[in-house]
Amino acid sequence: MITHTVAFKLKHPAGSAAEQLFLAKGSRLAEIAGVENFRCLRQISPKNPYDFNFSMQFADQTAYAHYNQHPDHQSFVKDIWLKEVADFLEADFIEI
Amino acid sequence: MITHTVAFKLKHPAGSAAEQLFLAKGSRLAEIAGVENFRCLRQISPKNPYDFNFSMQFADQTAYAHYNQHPDHQSFVKDIWLKEVADFLEADFIEI
Repeated sequence: MITHTVAFKLKHPAGSAAEQLFLAKGSRLAEIAGVENFRCLRQISPKNPYDFNFSMQFADQTAYAHYNQHPDHQSFVKDIWLKEVADFLEADFIEI
Repeated sequence: MITHTVAFKLKHPAGSAAEQLFLAKGSRLAEIAGVENFRCLRQISPKNPYDFNFSMQFADQTAYAHYNQHPDHQSFVKDIWLKEVADFLEADFIEI
């Protein structure tokens, strides 16, 4: 099981309708086949520069690659993510 | 429920006994009262500078504060973490 996460900060003002719409659109990534346990989280540590986090799990690298290449994911990145996200950091985890 | 995480990179060589010992000592933080679902993870994304991640959950801010102030946590930070960790980033998450 691979946990894929991305912490991010939006260009939109905190609490704005644009922020809510972005999170709603991002949460639809959960519908792509192979995405498990999708979570949309708020980052609350003042020691961290990001405001939100999408977290999801994949059974294996094949499922992860399927997601990465999926047209719904690619269009989300191109048409929404790259335009509305100010900064981000990806992280992927496996159990030791 | 609050998810507290810290991504980190050690001063020790990858695969070393010192690395394993650090992870074993860190994993004992799970024994502090209030720590739930402790996970010791390997970070595998090449887009991220950290190699490991400790993740744990607390029922509320009171349980989180108890952990932060607990002598076992404070001695781990002072005697082990600050000496053996090269770089780190904390992140705390709540469900939106």
